[in-house]
Amino acid sequence: MSAADAPVAFQDRYPARFSHCWGCGKDNPRGHHLKSHWDGDETVARFTVPPEYSGGVPGFVFGGMVASLLDCHGTASAAAFAYRAAGREMGDAGDFMRFVTASLKVEYLRPTPIGTALVIRGRLVSLDGRKATVALTLLAGGETCARGEMLAIQFRD
Amino acid sequence: MSAADAPVAFQDRYPARFSHCWGCGKDNPRGHHLKSHWDGDETVARFTVPPEYSGGVPGFVFGGMVASLLDCHGTASAAAFAYRAAGREMGDAGDFMRFVTASLKVEYLRPTPIGTALVIRGRLVSLDGRKATVALTLLAGGETCARGEMLAIQFRD
Repeated sequence: MSAADAPVAFQDRYPARFSHCWGCGKDNPRGHHLKSHWDGDETVARFTVPPEYSGGVPGFVFGGMVASLLDCHGTASAAAFAYRAAGREMGDAGDFMRFVTASLKVEYLRPTPIGTALVIRGRLVSLDGRKATVALTLLAGGETCARGEMLAIQFRD
Repeated sequence: MSAADAPVAFQDRYPARFSHCWGCGKDNPRGHHLKSHWDGDETVARFTVPPEYSGGVPGFVFGGMVASLLDCHGTASAAAFAYRAAGREMGDAGDFMRFVTASLKVEYLRPTPIGTALVIRGRLVSLDGRKATVALTLLAGGETCARGEMLAIQFRD
């Protein structure tokens, strides 16, 4: 599939005023531009962490970066789940449904390697009005390195 | 107090092999060098987030950065609490007690401003063998923006 055929990432459907996030905003020139997509009923993002984001010991990702990847993928996933539940397409002409994190719990199960393609997955646990609960996993080479649960709230624009 | 008189930060007492963290390692040339200190029975760090680490909306810190500040201050605080409980001085000649995050829960109570001096505080909840539970708060202008709880485990060196 060429880049021109690739589906547009959730984050690339955000209006410009919501697109400045260091982790995933397309309009942050110094950020990481994490991209999240559908994968069946789940969501997925892929990211390889550069060497400077190590923890205390070189070669492994620092805990805050693991939380960052889960946070950005989680709020993007919450929006995607809300759009799908409403029968809408993210980025359509209606009011934009942007979610923000109310709480995030991360369990660190094993060290997350630097320089390896990480896979971050999201699964909808519940959607109740403006509140979405999303289960998150971060994998390296098929092994789960971290697990998260996020409560995200739809932002009042 | 001159810089020469300032107490040495917890992170500056880590051995070189543990000092590469992007958030707080003294030996990471591209990192943030967060510094944590004692404040009575609690611990404190101060940090002003640069503009590029915004969330979707400019002017406010992205969620992953809030988690990062709590994570780095939390593991440093866990080590400090363990040293104090053992009647030892961090960085003494004995085996170094470095802690890693097993889990971190962050509650986002209000948006955290960019460009404001943030105060991150740590309080020991419990210390049981190699396990430390630390309560964390992040404040801006005296208001609590985020609250966290960390379970940290002493690393087997």
